[in-house]
Amino acid sequence: MWTASVFTLYPEMFPGPLGASMAGAALENGLWALEAKNIREHGLGRHRAVDDTPAGGGPGMVLRADVLAASLDAGVAPDDPRPRLLMSPRGKALNQPVVRQFAAGPGVIVVCGRFEGVDERVIEGRGLTEVSIGDYILSGGEIAALTLLDACVRLLPGVMGKDESGEDESFEGGLLEYPHYTRPRDWEGRAIPDVLLSGDHARIARWRREQSERLTRARRPDLLGKAEEA
Amino acid sequence: MWTASVFTLYPEMFPGPLGASMAGAALENGLWALEAKNIREHGLGRHRAVDDTPAGGGPGMVLRADVLAASLDAGVAPDDPRPRLLMSPRGKALNQPVVRQFAAGPGVIVVCGRFEGVDERVIEGRGLTEVSIGDYILSGGEIAALTLLDACVRLLPGVMGKDESGEDESFEGGLLEYPHYTRPRDWEGRAIPDVLLSGDHARIARWRREQSERLTRARRPDLLGKAEEA
Repeated sequence: MWTASVFTLYPEMFPGPLGASMAGAALENGLWALEAKNIREHGLGRHRAVDDTPAGGGPGMVLRADVLAASLDAGVAPDDPRPRLLMSPRGKALNQPVVRQFAAGPGVIVVCGRFEGVDERVIEGRGLTEVSIGDYILSGGEIAALTLLDACVRLLPGVMGKDESGEDESFEGGLLEYPHYTRPRDWEGRAIPDVLLSGDHARIARWRREQSERLTRARRPDLLGKAEEA
Repeated sequence: MWTASVFTLYPEMFPGPLGASMAGAALENGLWALEAKNIREHGLGRHRAVDDTPAGGGPGMVLRADVLAASLDAGVAPDDPRPRLLMSPRGKALNQPVVRQFAAGPGVIVVCGRFEGVDERVIEGRGLTEVSIGDYILSGGEIAALTLLDACVRLLPGVMGKDESGEDESFEGGLLEYPHYTRPRDWEGRAIPDVLLSGDHARIARWRREQSERLTRARRPDLLGKAEEA
């Protein structure tokens, strides 16, 4: 079974929002598994310290290499084939192809950073791959981990219903998704475009493709080159 | 007070992880406020339906314009000055300058999409701005909203402690952050770089800048042009 092992100082944040809706139902139905490990269990001394001041000075605190390594070594077998990820704004940008790759494997090991950062030596020594969900700073890696897991879990076999689509969506074709409409036909003087009510499937497909291209050109021209390469 | 009003089909996901740690303490101390509004309260008929099939065919369901508009109109005053955001992979990419802008204002109104999408007419009719947290697909906008809110809340006055930094971090200078180290001095044969123990603040600052540039060049060359412009 696809299993996520999360190393965090806030295990109470898991499953959190992943306990509801589509991911929550799938968790309950045994379509995936989640374990949250508290790094602090391997903290040092009476106060279970996990961090210390940065070598060379500067603000904030740094998560200790020895503490995080002890937590990982106790929770993950040496031959565990899952990728070992560290949620970090310094990481490679997460995108839908990477999500598909993680979802197709046996699961993920996810370390949630906190404080100013994580001692570089444990990143190297335990072979952690830094992954970023976007170009902004969070208070820790936990919400980034929830984001990564939600994106993966919806792609697991049996999680999405037959009526839901994993394909006809933004990024899957290298373009942003076309506009959607549903009943009522008229709303506050705004009508559903005639073409969508025509029943002409070829015309509808063409219109949607044009809308996708128009939106992508206007909002995300950086994606267009990639779509043409694909 | 900086206030987030979230419109969702899963109000139980809020505050979720934002109820713990830094954001949770700030919420408890009245440094920000959060209200989650259930869109389904404005659903139609006995089953409180909120969605319908897409005009023109295709998989999935579309959130109705009339239902979402009724929910927004009941929950937000017409003269509310906060930006009205729709979490959507079709949106403008969230980044740290946009986060700073939201954090500096009176708060945010956030609509969480679900299903295949939201009827385009309510996006236009209620002036929603689509915001994307990254190039991947989630099961809904809730975790994206949590991400946006966490990024904003940590920047609000009084939320971060004096010892924490809102500046010396990835993206703030247009570069990824340099590597961090802390005690012990030697760990598994790996030493803290000598320069960080030298006490020579100018050398340390130079080394960190070089490391930031090296990491950014290796992992995110797309950021380098922006850093030089800034």
